[in-house]
Amino acid sequence: MKELLWKNITQLKKETPLIQNITNYVVMNNTANALLAAGASPIMAHAHSEMEDMMNICQALVINIGTLDEYWVTAMKKAAKQANKLQKPWVLDPVGAGATPYRDEILADLLRLNPTIIRGNASEIMALAKHNTTITKGVDSSADSNEAITAANFLAKNFQTTVCISGITDIILNEEKEVHLSNGNKMMAKITGMGCSATALVAAFSAIIKDTAEATVSAMALLGVAGELAAKESKGPGSLQLNIIDKLYNLSEEEFISTLKIEIKRG
Amino acid sequence: MKELLWKNITQLKKETPLIQNITNYVVMNNTANALLAAGASPIMAHAHSEMEDMMNICQALVINIGTLDEYWVTAMKKAAKQANKLQKPWVLDPVGAGATPYRDEILADLLRLNPTIIRGNASEIMALAKHNTTITKGVDSSADSNEAITAANFLAKNFQTTVCISGITDIILNEEKEVHLSNGNKMMAKITGMGCSATALVAAFSAIIKDTAEATVSAMALLGVAGELAAKESKGPGSLQLNIIDKLYNLSEEEFISTLKIEIKRG
Amino acid sequence: MKELLWKNITQLKKETPLIQNITNYVVMNNTANALLAAGASPIMAHAHSEMEDMMNICQALVINIGTLDEYWVTAMKKAAKQANKLQKPWVLDPVGAGATPYRDEILADLLRLNPTIIRGNASEIMALAKHNTTITKGVDSSADSNEAITAANFLAKNFQTTVCISGITDIILNEEKEVHLSNGNKMMAKITGMGCSATALVAAFSAIIKDTAEATVSAMALLGVAGELAAKESKGPGSLQLNIIDKLYNLSEEEFISTLKIEIKRG
Repeated sequence: MKELLWKNITQLKKETPLIQNITNYVVMNNTANALLAAGASPIMAHAHSEMEDMMNICQALVINIGTLDEYWVTAMKKAAKQANKLQKPWVLDPVGAGATPYRDEILADLLRLNPTIIRGNASEIMALAKHNTTITKGVDSSADSNEAITAANFLAKNFQTTVCISGITDIILNEEKEVHLSNGNKMMAKITGMGCSATALVAAFSAIIKDTAEATVSAMALLGVAGELAAKESKGPGSLQLNIIDKLYNLSEEEFISTLKIEIKRG
Repeated sequence: MKELLWKNITQLKKETPLIQNITNYVVMNNTANALLAAGASPIMAHAHSEMEDMMNICQALVINIGTLDEYWVTAMKKAAKQANKLQKPWVLDPVGAGATPYRDEILADLLRLNPTIIRGNASEIMALAKHNTTITKGVDSSADSNEAITAANFLAKNFQTTVCISGITDIILNEEKEVHLSNGNKMMAKITGMGCSATALVAAFSAIIKDTAEATVSAMALLGVAGELAAKESKGPGSLQLNIIDKLYNLSEEEFISTLKIEIKRG
Repeated sequence: MKELLWKNITQLKKETPLIQNITNYVVMNNTANALLAAGASPIMAHAHSEMEDMMNICQALVINIGTLDEYWVTAMKKAAKQANKLQKPWVLDPVGAGATPYRDEILADLLRLNPTIIRGNASEIMALAKHNTTITKGVDSSADSNEAITAANFLAKNFQTTVCISGITDIILNEEKEVHLSNGNKMMAKITGMGCSATALVAAFSAIIKDTAEATVSAMALLGVAGELAAKESKGPGSLQLNIIDKLYNLSEEEFISTLKIEIKRG
């Protein structure tokens, strides 16, 4: 499995897929840099007049609602529909799910467009599932992993999607598979947009790998290992942000294989 | 006083207040990272449909007009009104005050909503006061500190607000207090958005400290000391931007106390 | 020639011209930092209500269509018209030219407003020329330099403009001159927005130097040398982004003169 993931990581640098990102203002720069460092080629566009055309030329789509507004939401829906029409993968990042009714309403709309993959933290995944399910235990911001797994399984089953719950342990699951990754460093939570970079990398791998669980695991394994190694040479989150970009670019096979902590639970 | 400020700095990391930012595109990433490194939790949202809801869950608000337009201005006003209704503090950053009539018109509107705290450079504070006062000596971009103090006192008195004039010396004043801080490094002026980060940190401290002058001094002292220490290990403004984030995260009590240069003028 | 370019570089730091940028969300932070590090003073504004006023106070304008939409396009046109009226230079960055019909339509409109200088990569320059010419050999994303020179000459002649094709070799040309620069490092292509920073620096030099070819060469020489030197101490594109900003700030005359590789082909 580790060798397969490494093969995928080297393959991304060869294929340099074009990834269209409708993402939030806060993270655009470091998301684009993360994609470039890992080998993909980012586009960031949102004009209604070019959404279909952009989807025609790209290989995968990111929809991240972090700084959504009415104009951007229309762009997201246009792009997702075109992705579906062209059978290109798209990844939903439900930033701030549960924070406001508006976000939850938009997320419900986007869920109905059947994202190929969803990546969020435990709170977000739980909030996303609650809006569309009978799970009624309540959603805490200090989210519990087991409850998040229940929510993720609900989403996976009802929307035929692959879900990644990212956190201290990253859990990737769908109806067939469940994989746990235990890399990273807690300081990564002190950099804005680490999750957004993760989502973009998931989209990049989904552009070159048909198995959506394998694509998601490849992305999360790469970022987790890069973050863990980068943290060792960082004095704080400022240098960590930079060192992660460097490590996405210059990670070696030996570093990757020896650092990766992966557990296959199902499939 | 130094011990009190240090206590506030450690308290911020414990309480991790949620800060809603309506700020400019240029600085969103490093503002969010500055808040995270100092211990606060940033939100950046601007959709009209969720402004009130976001204000309900956050503890303080930043309004920074750097890249304003009509949509964003409406969001700013909605958020400020809701902050006032809920008696939550909000901080105004009058970026580019005086540069265009449109900016000055919007700033006059925002001033009438009574910002809890205003943070700007000397030119901006003077431009802001001129628009609403009888100060008629003229506003220069190469602003004079003493004139800026007059302007700041005018604003403090007429709008019941606390004003921070940031520069080589940071001056924090309101009707009761006046404090001068003399930390930092001139290279900080070569990083975009240092002032914007300052404003966001002021909002973060205002979320956990009732005395608005004390909150503002805590924020400016933290950033000034972090910037001064970070500059010592920086070859230019690129590394300085990163080193400041690291220092906001890992500053020690000893470094803070021994570096801080503070002078209490009143109160 | 090298001495003249160095004189221009030091002159920029003395004159600190105000540069108005209507640019894309992805690069705003590092573009502003590049301008500050090189000595210019950035403004980033796009509100229709202040476009003319901003043009009145700035010395040059950047129009970069990277994340264009209808609102921003109107701002771009307003600003370009005002720049023309005031005879202030403006620089067009045709990001993603050829990617969608919408982009090409907007670029055709902007071309008709006669940009003072155009800076793009070979693909973009070729796409831009194709839209308005009889060049019909087709436009490839893996662009060929010689074809791009033909396209650039077409643009230069038909729109009385100076064109910079940036890449492994940067080619600056207009009807009178043609200069080739061979600095930089291939890792620069792995940082988002390097081209956008180049465009902004071109605008900064055009604010202080009348000869548009000389201004463009000064900017590209500075960035190429800074990038080449910065790459020597960078482990990846994360540290390179930062080190370039530092080097724009602290580059010495000796480093510049000894590193610059310049070839004057015409003029």
